[in-house]
Amino acid sequence: MVKGNGSEGRHGYYIEDLKVGMEASFSKVLSDHEVFAFAGISGDTNPVHLDQDYAAQSMFKERIAHGILTASLLSTVLGTKLPGPGAIYVSQTLAFKAPVLFGSEVAATVKIKALDPAKRRATFDCACAVDGKPVLEGEAVLMVPKRPQTEAA
Amino acid sequence: MVKGNGSEGRHGYYIEDLKVGMEASFSKVLSDHEVFAFAGISGDTNPVHLDQDYAAQSMFKERIAHGILTASLLSTVLGTKLPGPGAIYVSQTLAFKAPVLFGSEVAATVKIKALDPAKRRATFDCACAVDGKPVLEGEAVLMVPKRPQTEAA
Repeated sequence: MVKGNGSEGRHGYYIEDLKVGMEASFSKVLSDHEVFAFAGISGDTNPVHLDQDYAAQSMFKERIAHGILTASLLSTVLGTKLPGPGAIYVSQTLAFKAPVLFGSEVAATVKIKALDPAKRRATFDCACAVDGKPVLEGEAVLMVPKRPQTEAA
Repeated sequence: MVKGNGSEGRHGYYIEDLKVGMEASFSKVLSDHEVFAFAGISGDTNPVHLDQDYAAQSMFKERIAHGILTASLLSTVLGTKLPGPGAIYVSQTLAFKAPVLFGSEVAATVKIKALDPAKRRATFDCACAVDGKPVLEGEAVLMVPKRPQTEAA
């Protein structure tokens, strides 16, 4: 994806290059570090994420990762892989299906379900899973750049 | 909100205590620290968030905060203030309205728009704004605990 010598040339897919059914994934373990760092930068100090004693009394019996932290892995796939840099996040829906316990490896996958080249919009089915079990599902819409006229296909 | 001596007693609102129209807010400046830390924990290294040279060539002309980072402030309000600890995130929709430039103070507000006590569900209008201008809008649904039968109103 890197073109030329400078960072200004980096880009992801152009709308002309996308096809329904294309998909990409990103996986990351969400552990103490990610959850506490996320609490610090967001201010979300809900004890179910941070306090083992509190969490032991909760319905999940253990601390769980913030739902929006899990969702951030979808942003990672969309912003770095498909469609990648240059695309603009228009909307995202998130349905939380199951808790993500500390130390879980979360696999985030996005798959193109619809394209509107005239409006430069791409709609993605989004899913996060732990050991193949869905923990988060949703839909994202991104605005994707057209191929510059100066650049050959 | 702290009851008793241990953390196990901390809780937010019970479903019986919520009323349509109740609202809460949380504000935070999103600067270099938040954006780079978020990139590190999420893996979202899209250069529009991290690279000034790249961003100068983008449609926004400056680096912008991750949309999901802005959205995390909604989770902060919901998870720490209204309804607060004990509630379970069911779903969240996010419509990104404008970019958040580095150093912006983002005000996240949630307001109860509907309640379903039988299902213990509360639906919230959600908004994030910078200097009064909407940058993010959406809707959240949370499952809120009932007041324990052993506890007086």
